Amino acid sequence: MQEPSARPAHPEREALLEQLIDRLATLPSIGRKSAQRLAYHLLSRPLEEVSDFAATVSEARRRIHPCSVCGNHTEFDICRICLNPRRQQNLICVVEKPAEVAAFEKTGSFQGVYHVLGGCLSPLDGIGPGELRLESLFRRVTADGVEIIIALNTNAEGEATATYISQRLVGSKVRITRLARGIPVGSDLEYVDELTMLRALESRVEFQ
Amino acid sequence: MQEPSARPAHPEREALLEQLIDRLATLPSIGRKSAQRLAYHLLSRPLEEVSDFAATVSEARRRIHPCSVCGNHTEFDICRICLNPRRQQNLICVVEKPAEVAAFEKTGSFQGVYHVLGGCLSPLDGIGPGELRLESLFRRVTADGVEIIIALNTNAEGEATATYISQRLVGSKVRITRLARGIPVGSDLEYVDELTMLRALESRVEFQ
Repeated sequence: MQEPSARPAHPEREALLEQLIDRLATLPSIGRKSAQRLAYHLLSRPLEEVSDFAATVSEARRRIHPCSVCGNHTEFDICRICLNPRRQQNLICVVEKPAEVAAFEKTGSFQGVYHVLGGCLSPLDGIGPGELRLESLFRRVTADGVEIIIALNTNAEGEATATYISQRLVGSKVRITRLARGIPVGSDLEYVDELTMLRALESRVEFQ
Repeated sequence: MQEPSARPAHPEREALLEQLIDRLATLPSIGRKSAQRLAYHLLSRPLEEVSDFAATVSEARRRIHPCSVCGNHTEFDICRICLNPRRQQNLICVVEKPAEVAAFEKTGSFQGVYHVLGGCLSPLDGIGPGELRLESLFRRVTADGVEIIIALNTNAEGEATATYISQRLVGSKVRITRLARGIPVGSDLEYVDELTMLRALESRVEFQ
């Protein structure tokens, strides 16, 4: 129990509560108001539940690391996708972040494996090939009949990274493909941006 | 390090990552998708930062408890608002939850103190007077010249609690007031609900 007479500089400052709110407010898309609501929620829950929550956060961060093959999040040495004998090991989808693996997995129909680069080339931010999981990608594609699907964003960094990968694989037998660009399913054409519209026109396919 | 050969039932299950997402998804207004984004964010941050975050959550829950006078969150025996000699101890704003104290404090102009009931009467949920911080409220108002501002929600539970408090104080010299009901500042009259409109009409004041 604290001495109530030990007054801090601001007479009404509850430092620990403020610290909790500050920490929660560092989370993405959690503003100050949401952080306060989360803090009050946590303080209203049983002690054991909140301790378990904190322990899970801490343990997950400590034990989850990049898969030694593909770089995706795993608590094992090699992730479960890489180890699954039903997945095609010669069809490798190259993504920037683990979140994108989750997005592909949600479709439930991709049968290949992944390679998570951990970012894209960005010389201005000091991210060169050495900062990314690129060499391990090139080591994975030495066998015959491998296809790499480049699934990177279409910004400058993504394009530069895609170009770098394709140039490094010139002369190899690797097939390099990329995701189709076009109109998102369910979009109203009126609201599609002009670059997407242009790509969709260029990549038009036969009406069947 | 886990044995990669120790396969779980679902061959691609990352139990710890799923557990982290599950835990985050129990937070209010955090859906499954936000929980996943938060989990990936936490896994992308430095180990020490995430450990500190988890430790703050755990420590805050362990050390923050109800103020022994008013019931608001505090890490001390008596909260800083109750101890502040500049606050009027005879002007007590009665609220349901600590979050409402924060809402009043944000106005920066309330000079009184608070009493946090910890809920409202709700016989159907098994919440009677004994489950709320009511007796300690009645003990606080024995001096002369005390005003209680009832700042509870206008639902059935809030109204029942307000009525209970006023009935228990019949015959005492305590002045009991409640928050004004009316049109929210900045609201478009077109979208104000009819009950609020009715209250605003009933409580109309002189145009000055």
